[in-house]
Amino acid sequence: MQPQVRTVAFELEKALGKILNEPIRLSAAGRTDSGVHATGQVVSFSTERSFPFERLAIALNSILPNDITVCEAEIVEPSFSARFSALERTYVYVVLNSERPSALLRRYANQVRGSLDLDRLRQAAESLIGEHDFRSFCGVLPENGTTVRCLNRIDARRQGDLMVLTFGADGFLHHMVRTITGTLLEVAAGRREAESVKEILETRDRQKAGVTAPACGLFLAGVRYADFDSYRDPPICSSTLP
Amino acid sequence: MQPQVRTVAFELEKALGKILNEPIRLSAAGRTDSGVHATGQVVSFSTERSFPFERLAIALNSILPNDITVCEAEIVEPSFSARFSALERTYVYVVLNSERPSALLRRYANQVRGSLDLDRLRQAAESLIGEHDFRSFCGVLPENGTTVRCLNRIDARRQGDLMVLTFGADGFLHHMVRTITGTLLEVAAGRREAESVKEILETRDRQKAGVTAPACGLFLAGVRYADFDSYRDPPICSSTLP
Repeated sequence: MQPQVRTVAFELEKALGKILNEPIRLSAAGRTDSGVHATGQVVSFSTERSFPFERLAIALNSILPNDITVCEAEIVEPSFSARFSALERTYVYVVLNSERPSALLRRYANQVRGSLDLDRLRQAAESLIGEHDFRSFCGVLPENGTTVRCLNRIDARRQGDLMVLTFGADGFLHHMVRTITGTLLEVAAGRREAESVKEILETRDRQKAGVTAPACGLFLAGVRYADFDSYRDPPICSSTLP
Repeated sequence: MQPQVRTVAFELEKALGKILNEPIRLSAAGRTDSGVHATGQVVSFSTERSFPFERLAIALNSILPNDITVCEAEIVEPSFSARFSALERTYVYVVLNSERPSALLRRYANQVRGSLDLDRLRQAAESLIGEHDFRSFCGVLPENGTTVRCLNRIDARRQGDLMVLTFGADGFLHHMVRTITGTLLEVAAGRREAESVKEILETRDRQKAGVTAPACGLFLAGVRYADFDSYRDPPICSSTLP
C-alpha cells in the first residue's frame, strides 16, 4: 500500500472487499516495488463472511484489472500469516545479456551489454551465502528490526542470451535483491573484483555496494511455507537457442 | 501505414529519415495488425545516402521507441525487396490453454479455457495444407490479386500450459492465420468437426469459418529468402513444466 499510488495490494483489497462485502486488509509474503513482477506472491486475510472459496480465484479474476491474476485460493489455519509464516522467499532476476534491446522483453528483463563472466559472478555470490548483516545492500532501512538475513542460495545460469539469477532467503531487505544483483553484475562485467563483495558486506555501508539493478528484471517467484511452496518460473525465455 | 495511427512502419520510416536525412519508404515482408507482434519481420528500403550500415541497427535502436527493436541491418542487392523476394513467411500463434488468465502473458498469448484436443486440431489442419483458395479464411479481400496461397505447414505442439501453432506459407491473406487459428481452436474444443474444415475451404465463404482469434497471440516469427531466414522464436514460455 502506498498512498495515491495504484498498487497490487490496493486492487486486491478492493476486489476482495467487493466480493466479501466487508473491508479486507491483506498480509503479503514479499514486497514487489513498482515495476517488479510476481509469479508466486502469497497473501492472506481474515474474514467472517462465508463464500464458496473454491470459486474465489475465479470471482477475483473476473473483476481484477488484467495485469493482476489470482492463481488459487484456499482456507488456512487462523494462525497462518502469508508474511510471518513464510520460511523462505525466492526472487528471480532476469538479465538480457545482449548488445541489442528486446522490444518484447523490455518489461521483463534488464538488458546488459558486454560479456558477463558467470564464474566470477558465482565466486562473488558465494561470499554472500549464509547469515549476514546485509545493511550494505539495503535501500530504506527497516524502521525497527535487524538488517541480518539468512541468504540460502544464489543460483546463476544462462539460457541463450538470458542470464537468470535465483535468490532464496528467509527474508529480503528493501532493494536487497536489486542491489546484490547490480553489484554482482559489476563483478561479472569485470568492473569490480569478486573478492570485493565480502568487503562490501563487512563495511555495512550502502555506498560501497553497486548500483540498484532496474526493477523490470525482478520477479517474486515463490514463497515456501511449512506445507507448501508457491514457486512458479517467470514465463520468459530466450529467443536464441539455449 | 495507417493514417492517424502510430504504426511500426511509421516509426521506422521516421527514425530512418532522421538518420539518413532523406524521406524513406519501407517495403515490409509481412503484415502485423494492431496487437500482433513480430520477432522476425524484415523490411527493405533504398537510399542514396552513405552511412556505416554495420552501425545502423545501433543508431536506430537509440532513437526508436522502446517497443520497436531492430535486430540487424545489411546492404542487399538493388533487386531485393523484403516483400517480393520473400519465399516463405512463418507466423506463430500462442495459446494459453488454462482455466485462469495470466497477467504476465496477457499481451503475448490468447487464453483459451477448457480442454483442447491436439490430435483433432492436427487432423483438421491437414486439410488446409497445400495450394488452396483461402477466401473463406480471409478478412478484407485483396483489392486485386488472387486469394490462392500455398500453406506449407501447420505445426501444433504443447509446452506446459501453452499451445503453440506454427504456420508457414508463401504468403498470408488479411486475418488468415487468425481465422484459421480460431477455426482450428473450435475443432480442438470439440465445437466443430475436423472434417468441416475441408468443407469451409471449398465453400469460399468467410461466414462458414470460425471466429478470428485475438491479435495478442500472433507473432510474425520469420521470413525465408533465397539466402537467409530471419526466424526467431517468441520469447514466451510456459511457467508450468513442459
